[in-house]
Amino acid sequence: MPIDPHGLLLALDYGGTKHTAALLVRGEQKWLAHARTFSPPGADARYDQAAMLRMAHELLARHPGRLAAVGVSFGGPVDAGRGLVRLSHHVPGWEETPLRDLLQAEFGVPAAVDNDANVAALGEWRYGAGQGCQSLLYVTISTGIGGGWVLAGRIYSGADGMAGEIGHVVVRPGGAACVCGKRGCLEAESCGPAMARAAQARLAAEPATGAHLAALAGGDPGRVTGKLVAEAAAGGDALAQEVLDHAARMLGVGLGGAINLMNPERIVLGGGVTKSGDRYWQIVRETARDHALPQMRVEIVPAGW
Amino acid sequence: MPIDPHGLLLALDYGGTKHTAALLVRGEQKWLAHARTFSPPGADARYDQAAMLRMAHELLARHPGRLAAVGVSFGGPVDAGRGLVRLSHHVPGWEETPLRDLLQAEFGVPAAVDNDANVAALGEWRYGAGQGCQSLLYVTISTGIGGGWVLAGRIYSGADGMAGEIGHVVVRPGGAACVCGKRGCLEAESCGPAMARAAQARLAAEPATGAHLAALAGGDPGRVTGKLVAEAAAGGDALAQEVLDHAARMLGVGLGGAINLMNPERIVLGGGVTKSGDRYWQIVRETARDHALPQMRVEIVPAGW
Repeated sequence: MPIDPHGLLLALDYGGTKHTAALLVRGEQKWLAHARTFSPPGADARYDQAAMLRMAHELLARHPGRLAAVGVSFGGPVDAGRGLVRLSHHVPGWEETPLRDLLQAEFGVPAAVDNDANVAALGEWRYGAGQGCQSLLYVTISTGIGGGWVLAGRIYSGADGMAGEIGHVVVRPGGAACVCGKRGCLEAESCGPAMARAAQARLAAEPATGAHLAALAGGDPGRVTGKLVAEAAAGGDALAQEVLDHAARMLGVGLGGAINLMNPERIVLGGGVTKSGDRYWQIVRETARDHALPQMRVEIVPAGW
Repeated sequence: MPIDPHGLLLALDYGGTKHTAALLVRGEQKWLAHARTFSPPGADARYDQAAMLRMAHELLARHPGRLAAVGVSFGGPVDAGRGLVRLSHHVPGWEETPLRDLLQAEFGVPAAVDNDANVAALGEWRYGAGQGCQSLLYVTISTGIGGGWVLAGRIYSGADGMAGEIGHVVVRPGGAACVCGKRGCLEAESCGPAMARAAQARLAAEPATGAHLAALAGGDPGRVTGKLVAEAAAGGDALAQEVLDHAARMLGVGLGGAINLMNPERIVLGGGVTKSGDRYWQIVRETARDHALPQMRVEIVPAGW
């Protein structure tokens, strides 16, 4: 189906619990309108799909215009070629859902579906910190760690649509247990919850070194988050600093391996954990450089969006 | 320059000490003729270039016909876009040599230059075990470990022409010292000389467990090679089997990381070490699968050439 060059675009982002819909005029970078909804615990794919459609139709009703196309960012593995959601690691019931075809039938316009990290990589390449480069690895360090490649101006998604899963590259053999069943995956060492778990374990073992962090958490180690670890580190907490430094080093090890394998021109890092300050970035960059061959130059930069 | 569709192709392979030239008729896979020369210890780039040109001109003199193009496989980093050899890790004097332009001036026909692993990847994709696939990682496990990517029918060489350096991905932090200065690189754990060094160290420490290997080496641990380790393992030598198993496991770890990052359709393994038997291949495949996400299917197959 050709896409109407003057119509509206509907952008849908299906997250683990947070879903966003936005309308924009083609060729413009500013939203015309957007809406957000949160799923209750236990929501399944059917619930999320209905909530998203309701939200999208409300947006369209408030902003008359000709819809041209629907673009979808999905938080899980997608077969983009067939527009098929393979599964969600967080929401049950998404297995093999033909989301592209469902949306084309619903809205009567072309739709495209891809994994959220791939879509973010393309977005950074087109509008953000990846502009002008030929090969880009985008990595988001947040509740989990995911990534996507843009090579020669296109998303590279691999044979099963799964390329970019740097979060499950083992960076510390025998290390922390990962949701995927392995040990020492980058995600298990460096994502926000991994920092929180590491800090909690250390706090229990040696409370004196993490006094500032413990105070920030109101005295309840169970309330420690990755964000609090970064805050405590910035405030001089030695325990939090060590936990944050370890997460940065492990990320650098993972990026170094990716550099050796693919020699990308630029690596763009997004997600909340990357807001952990200059020292975090310095360790990530130094470790990545130390783990890659010296002939490979690469810029490691923060996401623009 | 357009390439004469009916002429001869001259293929040149510059190795560390072994250099090969071959002539073939375009579109045919069989050599018309080939020649090989070995450089003496201490030879530099100037020596190797002269030896190669002499050999090529002799081939051409013996096989009259119109030369159409020259294709070069170079054992070191190459900027293929500019036809520039960046350096050789084995032969001094290659730094920033414009080999493509030198050959075009010498032979008066178009020339193309790329890294040997990239060229091997393309060869396997076109004529070997990679035929028909969309994304291919080729890895050679030999004196060193190198690799190359073919994505969508083209060599993917990265921002500095260095993509595919899986040999310098760290698979065992703090492991064996690597020529690149790091520790625990795949090359330092799994190449032929790495197996030899590991076996020699073990033989010195516990000679009783490696009696068969020691006998194969004529009682001189200094003569142990990777090939002898594989032979001794096949003959039931426990020490050699452990060394070989470790090399296979480390290769599987490295491949698992590459699978997570790039989700290639196929991985083709070449080089002498891959001739180490069924158990070697089984460990490589199992470890790679165990280190990649289960949604990623990938075939790991021996090189066809």
